[in-house]
Amino acid sequence: MEKIESVLSFIVEIEKLKGVLRKTRPCALPRYENSAEHSWHVCLCALMLKDFADDTIDIDRVIRMLLIHDLGEIDAGDTIIYASETAENKAKEEAGVKRLLGLLPDGQGDEYLVLWQEFELGETPDAIYARAIDRIPPLLHNLHGDGHSWRDNNVPKEKVFGLNSRIEKGSKDIWRVLKGKLEEAVDAGLLN
Amino acid sequence: MEKIESVLSFIVEIEKLKGVLRKTRPCALPRYENSAEHSWHVCLCALMLKDFADDTIDIDRVIRMLLIHDLGEIDAGDTIIYASETAENKAKEEAGVKRLLGLLPDGQGDEYLVLWQEFELGETPDAIYARAIDRIPPLLHNLHGDGHSWRDNNVPKEKVFGLNSRIEKGSKDIWRVLKGKLEEAVDAGLLN
Repeated sequence: MEKIESVLSFIVEIEKLKGVLRKTRPCALPRYENSAEHSWHVCLCALMLKDFADDTIDIDRVIRMLLIHDLGEIDAGDTIIYASETAENKAKEEAGVKRLLGLLPDGQGDEYLVLWQEFELGETPDAIYARAIDRIPPLLHNLHGDGHSWRDNNVPKEKVFGLNSRIEKGSKDIWRVLKGKLEEAVDAGLLN
Repeated sequence: MEKIESVLSFIVEIEKLKGVLRKTRPCALPRYENSAEHSWHVCLCALMLKDFADDTIDIDRVIRMLLIHDLGEIDAGDTIIYASETAENKAKEEAGVKRLLGLLPDGQGDEYLVLWQEFELGETPDAIYARAIDRIPPLLHNLHGDGHSWRDNNVPKEKVFGLNSRIEKGSKDIWRVLKGKLEEAVDAGLLN
């Protein structure tokens, strides 16, 4: 019974991710996205695009990775990716993930900490694919939303093409499609 | 390339789930929950409580089931569970799920429609467990939130105990813990 109580306290605590706001607005909505609904969305992106991964991946591991990949933001907050992948910020996120997973009983959280670290390192096929997928929704938000986040945060096209070429490492085909859309956005003046 | 375009159109369309509001407020927040962030939350609930399932389950199937279980609400809207499990509403949801999954290429959506139907029927061990887990967050929201949704919707304790005993079908131990908390809520006057 005590173990169940511990898991329930974890379940309540991670709800705070619903209050962490990101830097883009969903295609359908006038408000900013939060990191919990983003986590759901990327899981379904990963699932439905799995056949386009260039390497052999374990999609169920990828989904678990994506379910937990943003938990560190509960303590560290969300920062725009074009400025935020600093060692200091990552250390803050890792401490937060450890705190949260530490609420689980019997060291049950250990395997998820390892999975979170694997995602952050981005070196295994599963992590490379997961990180590629994680880039797709914000690109679609900008492409369908008049480039609002690029504009609001003064992100030049070189940075957008540079950072998002991470998608290519996971899937050349998906990157080809999205790169074409980005080039159209440049032509249309959404991205400068 | 065309197949990827089709999946991207699915990814954009399902974002609308972020705009479907539910009837409870998350523990940490003053606003109502949406069905997309709920879907993320129940996936992690299911994962972290999997060892308490009474039957043998395939947790990866359960997670896929929970990722898609609310997609029908995009077209049908969310309705409070104490009043909503009608044939008419379920038919509307199923039509919505078919429309959305139909956006995927090559009949890729068929296996997810079958999974959604399995969840709705609630007869297999995976579906029984998934449906048990789906009840947990709204209970916690009420227990940590002064019974707001029970009160706002005039839900009597008999209905709360009756419908949520669905949890017992998936896990006697989890139900024992939550039933105890509900009894405390009755004693504290949160639930009448």
